[in-house]
Amino acid sequence: MKVILDCDPGHDDAIAIILAASKISPLDIVGITTVSGNVEVEKNTLNALKICDIIGLDDVPVAQGATRPMVKKSEIAEEIHGETGLDGPNLPLTPKKAATSQHAIDFIIEQLHNSAEPITLVPTGPLTNIAMALVKDPSIKKNINEIVLMGGGTFGNWTPAAEFNIYVDAEAAKVVFESGILIRMFGLDVTHQVLATKETVGHLREINNPVSEFVAELLVFFMQAYKDHFDFPGGPIHDACTVAHLLDPTIFEFEHVHVAIETKGEHTYGMTAVDRLGVTGREPNTYFATGLDQGKFWRLFKKAMESYSD
Amino acid sequence: MKVILDCDPGHDDAIAIILAASKISPLDIVGITTVSGNVEVEKNTLNALKICDIIGLDDVPVAQGATRPMVKKSEIAEEIHGETGLDGPNLPLTPKKAATSQHAIDFIIEQLHNSAEPITLVPTGPLTNIAMALVKDPSIKKNINEIVLMGGGTFGNWTPAAEFNIYVDAEAAKVVFESGILIRMFGLDVTHQVLATKETVGHLREINNPVSEFVAELLVFFMQAYKDHFDFPGGPIHDACTVAHLLDPTIFEFEHVHVAIETKGEHTYGMTAVDRLGVTGREPNTYFATGLDQGKFWRLFKKAMESYSD
Amino acid sequence: MKVILDCDPGHDDAIAIILAASKISPLDIVGITTVSGNVEVEKNTLNALKICDIIGLDDVPVAQGATRPMVKKSEIAEEIHGETGLDGPNLPLTPKKAATSQHAIDFIIEQLHNSAEPITLVPTGPLTNIAMALVKDPSIKKNINEIVLMGGGTFGNWTPAAEFNIYVDAEAAKVVFESGILIRMFGLDVTHQVLATKETVGHLREINNPVSEFVAELLVFFMQAYKDHFDFPGGPIHDACTVAHLLDPTIFEFEHVHVAIETKGEHTYGMTAVDRLGVTGREPNTYFATGLDQGKFWRLFKKAMESYSD
Amino acid sequence: MKVILDCDPGHDDAIAIILAASKISPLDIVGITTVSGNVEVEKNTLNALKICDIIGLDDVPVAQGATRPMVKKSEIAEEIHGETGLDGPNLPLTPKKAATSQHAIDFIIEQLHNSAEPITLVPTGPLTNIAMALVKDPSIKKNINEIVLMGGGTFGNWTPAAEFNIYVDAEAAKVVFESGILIRMFGLDVTHQVLATKETVGHLREINNPVSEFVAELLVFFMQAYKDHFDFPGGPIHDACTVAHLLDPTIFEFEHVHVAIETKGEHTYGMTAVDRLGVTGREPNTYFATGLDQGKFWRLFKKAMESYSD
Repeated sequence: MKVILDCDPGHDDAIAIILAASKISPLDIVGITTVSGNVEVEKNTLNALKICDIIGLDDVPVAQGATRPMVKKSEIAEEIHGETGLDGPNLPLTPKKAATSQHAIDFIIEQLHNSAEPITLVPTGPLTNIAMALVKDPSIKKNINEIVLMGGGTFGNWTPAAEFNIYVDAEAAKVVFESGILIRMFGLDVTHQVLATKETVGHLREINNPVSEFVAELLVFFMQAYKDHFDFPGGPIHDACTVAHLLDPTIFEFEHVHVAIETKGEHTYGMTAVDRLGVTGREPNTYFATGLDQGKFWRLFKKAMESYSD
Repeated sequence: MKVILDCDPGHDDAIAIILAASKISPLDIVGITTVSGNVEVEKNTLNALKICDIIGLDDVPVAQGATRPMVKKSEIAEEIHGETGLDGPNLPLTPKKAATSQHAIDFIIEQLHNSAEPITLVPTGPLTNIAMALVKDPSIKKNINEIVLMGGGTFGNWTPAAEFNIYVDAEAAKVVFESGILIRMFGLDVTHQVLATKETVGHLREINNPVSEFVAELLVFFMQAYKDHFDFPGGPIHDACTVAHLLDPTIFEFEHVHVAIETKGEHTYGMTAVDRLGVTGREPNTYFATGLDQGKFWRLFKKAMESYSD
Repeated sequence: MKVILDCDPGHDDAIAIILAASKISPLDIVGITTVSGNVEVEKNTLNALKICDIIGLDDVPVAQGATRPMVKKSEIAEEIHGETGLDGPNLPLTPKKAATSQHAIDFIIEQLHNSAEPITLVPTGPLTNIAMALVKDPSIKKNINEIVLMGGGTFGNWTPAAEFNIYVDAEAAKVVFESGILIRMFGLDVTHQVLATKETVGHLREINNPVSEFVAELLVFFMQAYKDHFDFPGGPIHDACTVAHLLDPTIFEFEHVHVAIETKGEHTYGMTAVDRLGVTGREPNTYFATGLDQGKFWRLFKKAMESYSD
Repeated sequence: MKVILDCDPGHDDAIAIILAASKISPLDIVGITTVSGNVEVEKNTLNALKICDIIGLDDVPVAQGATRPMVKKSEIAEEIHGETGLDGPNLPLTPKKAATSQHAIDFIIEQLHNSAEPITLVPTGPLTNIAMALVKDPSIKKNINEIVLMGGGTFGNWTPAAEFNIYVDAEAAKVVFESGILIRMFGLDVTHQVLATKETVGHLREINNPVSEFVAELLVFFMQAYKDHFDFPGGPIHDACTVAHLLDPTIFEFEHVHVAIETKGEHTYGMTAVDRLGVTGREPNTYFATGLDQGKFWRLFKKAMESYSD
């Protein structure tokens, strides 16, 4: 299955990439595209390139995307991801490869036009690149298999009503959710159930390969940030849910519901209004993840990390 | 403790009144005021008067209030409460007493001015009367002890984002939540935990007094409506939480948080944006109920119903 | 014709009252009600009472109304009307009569219920009192002849899109314009055509009675404020248009159009969206004043002022 | 002076192109880009190509742009421009040249990067292409001389508050007006003063060259559409104002003001809030055209049309 990982790495984005590139993954990563989100896009691109180096993902192109949201001003989340966007582990000073000169928007459009089979888009940052590509060339829709995204929820983390990825570019989210493309949404309702803890770090350290060690260091920083800012007992590895689902579609449970994006509200800008009770009468447009089999998830996670020992 | 019950009975409003008037209650019910909500205000008033008859609440004045929300068009919830607003039990055809000729807004204002001690307002319907009173005469604030209300939540039941009471008159809710008065809020987060079931009905039938029988019949209808519309395993007796808390303040748990009312949103009108993570930096204005001691609640409920046997 | 003058005097409100009370006026002033607007309602009430003293309007009750808008925070216009709301002329230190103890909202409701003939409401301030009365008792509609108001326009003076009276309480305006009552609207489009100038002051001084002298002093201050803040060549005596129309319905020209009130906009809160081109397909709800016969207006104005010499 | 004409021809867009390409014009037309607006973008592109044929603009590339607005659903104005978008004159069945394969967004970006001197953008349709280019590559700003656009006004023609071009894609307009680029805005306030009449058609027929005849036929259709829909005494050749100003900067008068774009309003979406009174305290971002020297304009118009006789 062909995928494009559209991300803003970002600790949990990094883990998503690492799962997707692991030896247990059947995914064909067509490319990694970056977007302004957790930190500025240039930093996110650099991080993506460095992650590729660490995990040996040499042949996958990285294309840099939007430097700002479609309509509103930029906003970043340095308090969670640190100044570099990937604070914690020691990163290579400079990546071996460079990003493509092609803009992520055009990379996405071109790959979708050139691929004989449909591609699954996996956005784990703000949806700016995806929405811009859809506005620039709506004909790409027909070759998108599914959009498997991390974002939103019935509650928020950036405001009381809105999750960061959707809040940063709610207009882009509106374009995506109204596109008619099949959407699979991993929002806070489920990602807050996927908490990395000291135990997780212990397991990673036992595995003891460079990648598991890298992930352990990512988690140590990330768990502390969630402890400090939200008093969470662990680090919710939000973005990893998307790829975990693609590796094993039996892990997560979903409801088929309508999701609308709030772009007008005074206190609710960027909210995903998830119609779980079916009160709007609108046709479902989203498979909304509600729960998971924790055992299955963490066994998959472990196997993926172990696969880097081979 | 002096209270004014401002309501739109309504099955769960009825139960709130019954708890407040029970022999185990130390509450001094200054009056019952009605508001357009579950059904039209005239029906709600009639229901309030009939409830008074059933439970022998002869000396408490009932004052009819707003026939419409402050700004938007009316909306009612007949599908949940039936055409009369209190479908299910056999009700007296005509109530013994009549409502006062005084408008609820003026009743509230006058009582607050005339009372030597502060009064607690207990709104279990849309907040129109309370907000209109506050706008008409802001000086009443100083004699309001607390507003203990049922409404809102971090999710909705009338829309994906909004609970019925707040949705019906979000402008009124905005006035109330921005008033500076201490607010204690029982939203869907907690009221959906307070489910009456067949077992509850069984217990009521065992108690076997006219009031417990009346409540049993209310619940039979109400549980079916929640089964039909929301596929709920029981009937959430939302409004009863407010009075239960006043009878025993140790039943419910609260967080002290900021709550903002959304009046502008396209998909989120009437949402209560509850800042549980403290991300807005705004001063808390609300004690937001998050959970309860189920045993304590239902023991209190039973004792109150039994007290009508004496 | 019975009228209630609902106002926030205010220089141009004062002139409206003076026109209405002049000996050439056939209007039966049922009462003057005051509202928070140009300055705080207490000051507006005091001003109304003092104006009554100056012009000998001893028998007309003055009822004080809303101290704040229905939903949003108060806003006043001291920069235009000065600290007292009526800066400029020497005013009596204390008025002879007191305001009624009845709230303006109740005064309006009671008068409408008690009057055998329909009453025309003439609001020249924010529409809070009128809207609150309509929400408190919608049955008053049937005895309202017409609402002849100053407010709004196709452009603004308090924001680029909104005129002060409507901006201060757009929710109230929404209630009024959606009420189904016949509305006659004098917005900035027409009131900016009614400019008092030095010549006007000269004429008033020639008339030389205490009232014309009072108006002359009002205008001197008001013209200067408009010069300073808006660089206007004269003082637009906005509110006077409403009464002038009632005294001579042939002065102003109107279009019958739909007017909607914006309460959600980020930059347009309080705008009156006047559908002059008929592009919305909505039924007209407003007679919108577009122009006037300047000669007729100023002759009427002069005659009214002269009538105080008798 | 290098210009890119970004348009949706459209009768008045056609006249803008004809002015720009006339022999009296010093403008160097780098390209014509098209956008969804008056009609679907494919039709607008075809019209642009046919106009090039009629006026011999063989060497200017035409690049097709956005097929839809950035965020909201498409809306077209067939009732004004007819089914083809250029109803009225006989048009060539197929244009001689084809549009470039490059997307207008990329054409604009590339031209701005490759030009040694700054380029003036002249959008006379919705601002989708310009905004998309600015979001995709914000670095182009530094080589944009000025954006000289037709759009907006203190009143509307598509809704009571909004002009068509801005209404169709208010989010794009927001991006453009908040970009910091110098904006010169020809809104309805001025374009409704530039009315082509039967007299204009008569003059064109006297000039009697193929282009003047083409323009005459455009105007006959366009004037009738404005007569039918808005009861206008002539056809406002809105878009032509932009180019006329570039040909002779002394024709129009401007105010330097702040303009904000309303994207949230219920009745005012797409309004340009023009702060002519300076009440917002915001720094001016726009030269807002308020009036013109009619003689100068029409003499320029005539000379341009005559230049096609040579």
